Amino acid sequence: MYRAPIEEIAFTLMSVCGLDDLQKTVVHSELGDDLVSAILTEAGRFTAEEIAPLNSIGDKHGASFSDGVVTTAPGWKELYQNWIQGGWNGLSARAETGGQGLPLMLNTAALEMWNSGSMAFAIGPTLTMGAIEALEKHASEELKGTYLEKLVSGEWMGTMNLTEPQAGSDLNALTAKAVPAGDGTYKISGQKIFITYGEHDMTDNIVHLVLARLPDAPAGTKGISLFLVPKCFVLEDGSLGEKNDVRCAGVEHKLGIHGSPTCTMVYGDEGGATGWLIGEENRGLACMFTMMNNARLAVGVQGLGVAERAYQQALSYALDRKQGRAPGDQGEGMSPIARHPDIKRTLLAMRTRTQVARAICYACAHAIDMSNVAETPEDSAFWTDRAGLLTPLAKAIPTDFGVEVASMGVQIHGGMGYIEETGAAQHLRDSRIAPIYEGTNSIQAMDLVMRKLPMSDGQHVKGFIAELRGIADQVALSNRPEFGPTGQRLKAAIDALDEATEWMLSARADNRKAEALAGATPYLRLAGLTFGGVLLAKGALKTGAENSNALKDRTLLARSFAETCLCEVHALNSDVTSSAEVILSFDPEALAS
Amino acid sequence: MYRAPIEEIAFTLMSVCGLDDLQKTVVHSELGDDLVSAILTEAGRFTAEEIAPLNSIGDKHGASFSDGVVTTAPGWKELYQNWIQGGWNGLSARAETGGQGLPLMLNTAALEMWNSGSMAFAIGPTLTMGAIEALEKHASEELKGTYLEKLVSGEWMGTMNLTEPQAGSDLNALTAKAVPAGDGTYKISGQKIFITYGEHDMTDNIVHLVLARLPDAPAGTKGISLFLVPKCFVLEDGSLGEKNDVRCAGVEHKLGIHGSPTCTMVYGDEGGATGWLIGEENRGLACMFTMMNNARLAVGVQGLGVAERAYQQALSYALDRKQGRAPGDQGEGMSPIARHPDIKRTLLAMRTRTQVARAICYACAHAIDMSNVAETPEDSAFWTDRAGLLTPLAKAIPTDFGVEVASMGVQIHGGMGYIEETGAAQHLRDSRIAPIYEGTNSIQAMDLVMRKLPMSDGQHVKGFIAELRGIADQVALSNRPEFGPTGQRLKAAIDALDEATEWMLSARADNRKAEALAGATPYLRLAGLTFGGVLLAKGALKTGAENSNALKDRTLLARSFAETCLCEVHALNSDVTSSAEVILSFDPEALAS
Repeated sequence: MYRAPIEEIAFTLMSVCGLDDLQKTVVHSELGDDLVSAILTEAGRFTAEEIAPLNSIGDKHGASFSDGVVTTAPGWKELYQNWIQGGWNGLSARAETGGQGLPLMLNTAALEMWNSGSMAFAIGPTLTMGAIEALEKHASEELKGTYLEKLVSGEWMGTMNLTEPQAGSDLNALTAKAVPAGDGTYKISGQKIFITYGEHDMTDNIVHLVLARLPDAPAGTKGISLFLVPKCFVLEDGSLGEKNDVRCAGVEHKLGIHGSPTCTMVYGDEGGATGWLIGEENRGLACMFTMMNNARLAVGVQGLGVAERAYQQALSYALDRKQGRAPGDQGEGMSPIARHPDIKRTLLAMRTRTQVARAICYACAHAIDMSNVAETPEDSAFWTDRAGLLTPLAKAIPTDFGVEVASMGVQIHGGMGYIEETGAAQHLRDSRIAPIYEGTNSIQAMDLVMRKLPMSDGQHVKGFIAELRGIADQVALSNRPEFGPTGQRLKAAIDALDEATEWMLSARADNRKAEALAGATPYLRLAGLTFGGVLLAKGALKTGAENSNALKDRTLLARSFAETCLCEVHALNSDVTSSAEVILSFDPEALAS
Repeated sequence: MYRAPIEEIAFTLMSVCGLDDLQKTVVHSELGDDLVSAILTEAGRFTAEEIAPLNSIGDKHGASFSDGVVTTAPGWKELYQNWIQGGWNGLSARAETGGQGLPLMLNTAALEMWNSGSMAFAIGPTLTMGAIEALEKHASEELKGTYLEKLVSGEWMGTMNLTEPQAGSDLNALTAKAVPAGDGTYKISGQKIFITYGEHDMTDNIVHLVLARLPDAPAGTKGISLFLVPKCFVLEDGSLGEKNDVRCAGVEHKLGIHGSPTCTMVYGDEGGATGWLIGEENRGLACMFTMMNNARLAVGVQGLGVAERAYQQALSYALDRKQGRAPGDQGEGMSPIARHPDIKRTLLAMRTRTQVARAICYACAHAIDMSNVAETPEDSAFWTDRAGLLTPLAKAIPTDFGVEVASMGVQIHGGMGYIEETGAAQHLRDSRIAPIYEGTNSIQAMDLVMRKLPMSDGQHVKGFIAELRGIADQVALSNRPEFGPTGQRLKAAIDALDEATEWMLSARADNRKAEALAGATPYLRLAGLTFGGVLLAKGALKTGAENSNALKDRTLLARSFAETCLCEVHALNSDVTSSAEVILSFDPEALAS
């Protein structure tokens, strides 16, 4: 059972994260409130009625492999057809190729719902959206003409082929080969692993984007090119011809997202798969990087989506299940466990983390949208920096929270949570991949500290922190007793973020790279918690007094996060700024003997 | 692959947790260092060679159910036979019934290894040990004569039957019936769920301990009696007769510990299973409570065992896997990921949590042992209080850490961690039950705050904190520069524990029960982290300068825990002492509409 939290999603988009800014732009001037509302409502209905019920079926059946053929779970093929017929695949793709040209923010909100419905289902279209973006930005007109419309409609799906056994986080070691065939195409060969929806029965064709090296390419990441390799060749009239020299050699047996086939793909068994270059030779990684913000955000949204689903399920169970007598309850019978103080604590922790994850994801989408519609170089530079700063937060915080919330959901179910039929455990299993792929959360922390903090000579992050301080000041000045100590807690958290940021900037400036890296993970969490706490408080500030239930509820959320979770930031600040010496002095290799 | 950390186990037993105190007692006067060492070494060898290799087989095959018959995974029956032939089942059972009469501490150390080998395997004998203890303390001589020796040898296994669908954490709602048959026996009927090893093929007979109500029993937990219900009747000559009226109706499909059959047991389908009363009528829960400390500690040891296994696997992977270039590394190639600062941080977090879990478990076992050998009423009262205080910590902290460490292990493996063949994910799935069963960690926190802190009018916990302060003072006075700020961090943590404890004691004295319960979970973690930090530092203090590698290593562990983990206590203190108002004002039922 899943019910889309449309009201909270719409409010977070509009009032917390700035969809209204986009409505004021020329590009999105036709996006009225009614349209936003209609899209969200229909996406919520489709998810609740069509996607959510197939989630456990995907988990139980998985995607089966036999003789190179991958069969998705019962009902999934039909679900996908219904989903693309609803026009959902091209929500934020350009209108020229059949897309709806809507802001990424709106697609992000819809993506949250698809992921609440089924993360294993939603990840397929997510990959297609990445392929669309890569082609839109880098492919030749000819390639676009052949492939883009069918990818945007969803008639065909796309994949990303980066990882090889020896090349995961580090693509320097990539060895797949591409040899010019003399006719403008290339012969691709090599093995790729962990390829999501690399092979399946949901579409007639699959468009693989593959990283490979040319024979004379420089070593390292500067010698990697990006190729389009279709599963089936496309004839002049647009119909499908013979199969290309690419096959699926097997699917992985994974902890979760069983419905999503994770494939080992073999290219060039019979002399080379035919591929077409996207962008320039040896510039493949740059092409991939232009998609990176969106792809990382999309994984963050997976954490968010599963968190919302796990929270709803735990709340429902806690209201239904009776054990023990809660303090203050009268009479003889047992109380719903939702009345017990420790369960209230856990439910609040799940709700606040989910809402923080939502606000961070939408804020990141907002920044990407703003960078896309910027009309001045200053605006473009500012929003590009902001999107860069928020991307590692939007990937890591919601995915960590996704696992935390799903695990709390298991705990609230007690023994029933450990039984697979209940469904709580599936959320934990599904969510556990999100902190790993699309750059582990450790990679995100390194990116934040080494590449994002130094942007604009450190001025961008300082401006960001000043913005947070402005909101915290508003809370403190709001004179709402219901906020309790929220304002002062936020200010103290921002002070901690400020201090840790200064430490990081100077560690980097002093070339103390190892020290900065030793504290990168707690720094990212410190920044994410502080940003999240401010966004919750902003939600409460933006709620009008006439909406008294929502005002009470959002104030409670902001305050409970400030009092139970935000205090962690001081520990994180201490960790960031003091523990590098002891961490770096640890020599795991000395334990190998 | 598992290698028993014998040196660390022995050191923790002897020098950190006080096995040497026990060696000085009359009861354990024959327990020399050589015997301890021989037992640990042999247990480690057996685990590494015989148990550990069958762990993934148990996970893959599970325990299968067909027509009331449960078949364990291939090799498991033979493994169990080898294990009992080694005499391991009766390590701490009394000598009179064939046990070895060794301290629980030593059994706890062995149990850690069995759980590292396979948690799903080790949990079976753990239940038998509980049954042995219940019979030793409460059963009639006749019952003891019939059952005890075969349980101690392991020829038969025991089970605990408490939970019913409506009665989990709250046994008030228990409805299984027991009707006197007129011949001194009782007819038992009802359904029990989640019965670990309730049915299997490893032994010819299974001795069920079952909670049920007599017809005229008072309502609630004061009307529950404990019965022994054998699977097969035992004839006068000790041979097995007909089967009793009890059957297994199915096994659960669980997230983890697949090798352990979790059974639904149906009693009395054909008129009533024959049972024998253990202890007095209506005093069954008291009988169960005498086992509670040991059983909860045993579950804590599961978390510890899995943490050690997950840590070893992650370390091995991190030393082997190469990606990227670590800061400071020279040359062209990629570095083992163990050289990257963030991986060092994670490996240290796994190691310190594992060692903290070990020390807390052994310290709890020590207190139980000391209470068993106490020669004066004062000693007995003191050690009974201490065992009571440490039990919720020993159950909750190691089981939470078990999940945290296993999850970190998955993360270190990157994408490979999500693939079931790697084995890292199994540790996460297996460990996830331990915070739930044998009293959820929420129940442990309630027990700590409502029952344990008030012991001896609050004086016991105050004395405990004073002991911790004494060790922190020694660290501060040790003048070892390698400790860095460890001493002052420990003192600050103890101050935080002191403050939170005073708050809890006064909340309880003022009858602010709901407020105390709202902060119970962070209070438990605060107490556990502080105790753990002190125990790590004690390990470093107790290591002689002649053992320079161990000294360096243990000092590093104590310091890294103090700098990266212990700072969390101040957030926890703030949470405990300030967040009750906001938590209690949350009304989940208002969200149900």
